[in-house]
Amino acid sequence: MFKQLALIGCGLMGGSFALALKRAGLVEQVVGHSKSAASTKLALGLGVVDSCAETALAAVSGADLVLIAVPVSATETCLTAIRPGLQGDALLMDVGSTKCDVVDTARRALGGQFEQFVPAHPIAGSEQAGVAHADAGLYQGRQVILTPLAQTRDDLVRKAATVWTAIGAQVRQMSPERHDAAFAAVSHLPHLLAFACFSSVADQPDGLDHLSLAGPGFRDFTRIAASDPAVWRDILLTNREQVLQQSQRFRLTLDALEQAMLAGDAQALEDLIRKASSARSAWQIGGAAR
Amino acid sequence: MFKQLALIGCGLMGGSFALALKRAGLVEQVVGHSKSAASTKLALGLGVVDSCAETALAAVSGADLVLIAVPVSATETCLTAIRPGLQGDALLMDVGSTKCDVVDTARRALGGQFEQFVPAHPIAGSEQAGVAHADAGLYQGRQVILTPLAQTRDDLVRKAATVWTAIGAQVRQMSPERHDAAFAAVSHLPHLLAFACFSSVADQPDGLDHLSLAGPGFRDFTRIAASDPAVWRDILLTNREQVLQQSQRFRLTLDALEQAMLAGDAQALEDLIRKASSARSAWQIGGAAR
Repeated sequence: MFKQLALIGCGLMGGSFALALKRAGLVEQVVGHSKSAASTKLALGLGVVDSCAETALAAVSGADLVLIAVPVSATETCLTAIRPGLQGDALLMDVGSTKCDVVDTARRALGGQFEQFVPAHPIAGSEQAGVAHADAGLYQGRQVILTPLAQTRDDLVRKAATVWTAIGAQVRQMSPERHDAAFAAVSHLPHLLAFACFSSVADQPDGLDHLSLAGPGFRDFTRIAASDPAVWRDILLTNREQVLQQSQRFRLTLDALEQAMLAGDAQALEDLIRKASSARSAWQIGGAAR
Repeated sequence: MFKQLALIGCGLMGGSFALALKRAGLVEQVVGHSKSAASTKLALGLGVVDSCAETALAAVSGADLVLIAVPVSATETCLTAIRPGLQGDALLMDVGSTKCDVVDTARRALGGQFEQFVPAHPIAGSEQAGVAHADAGLYQGRQVILTPLAQTRDDLVRKAATVWTAIGAQVRQMSPERHDAAFAAVSHLPHLLAFACFSSVADQPDGLDHLSLAGPGFRDFTRIAASDPAVWRDILLTNREQVLQQSQRFRLTLDALEQAMLAGDAQALEDLIRKASSARSAWQIGGAAR
């Protein structure tokens, strides 16, 4: 399907995409470039990329598919660097967790070639960053959100949907605004709370002792607190207003639970917990809560 | 090892204990009693108990091991009910997630037989409540905290440690106060936050749509929000002061993250995230964070 994938950013997300394409026989060769030469070299050693390029611009030379898989704040630098070498019919995608900011950046950086950019967000990942954890099955059964604009070329949107579908993902389309509002709630807020909860427990005087007693509930609740700091710094900053709104909403719900505790109102407390518990029991990935 | 286990409360925790003892060949017969006749009957049908007793008092008749596995607020009623029938050498334990309150209750309810009560908290469970989910392996590899008092009989504390060890658990001893302080941090706070986060997302105008987009991070972060409402109502109320202190501490850490976001201070935000991320990466169940 593709002659050459230029992979800009050889980390967990990009590396997994390259491996998935290779496994599906969808690409002839993968040329990789990372800010860190060590990452690119490791990607080569692991067979994630077939060759390394010294620059992002060199990587896109001859590429009919370009994936930008870098922390969101590095997107502009990448796009500006590759623009002079981007082929006129190449499909260009990212994998960023925020979309409004990325779209604004791409519009500025790409000019007339903005029409080739199909913003993408695969709802997958791992708290274990780096190409060493790249996994050809990472996107299998996961959702991928595409947020094309009016100017985006329809044929490239279709091609993007086809490639993600071919590696096992379910594709959905929506506006960047709707995307960012939803993911502030179901992803960015939980990460913010997990960072805060883990640090709050770890930093207290008996923190290490407390942590030695924690069980499976704590393990799962705080798993995402181990996520990549640079990636999450960018997500929380680029989607700041939405995340802060979600946090404010969360605090009000927490207030209500604490008020019931303070009042010793067992019935009110149980009602609030039951509401959460019933809805969470009915929810599953990819489906709405009943 | 034991002739008769009286299981008061045939749910997930008690049922799993009975199954584990049976699998290890540590008990000749299990007599069950639950507030809900349906639960007791289901436990009988599943082979978790060998016979059903109409009352808690009847269940302990002839028992050399008694396990109280009910929501914490039902502990007093249970202990008061069984006291007249409790054999003088029987080992009596609970599985409650809070200990100071249970110890006070037991002291009141048991009088001179308080010395037979070995307060226990196995750090295991599931968000799927009920005896239908009972699992002989639930305590395998998990920690069990015993919080004996000065009056508690040493031979019964040793017997308690032996039985939990025999079904695969690692036993630790500490004071009820230390227990409650630690679990407010690593268990009760995360549950409170998970309830609040799930409800906050689900109850907003686009909540159902947002939930349909959530991925594996959200799934794991909110898993404990599906926990049993009656059990958690009691835990949050009986350990209220400690939980509210932990929540206050959590809010300060959240404030710091939000301040960095509001200030657009990328370095400060990254530093805060990196602190959490590094410590969480280094942590594992049963071990202190490095």
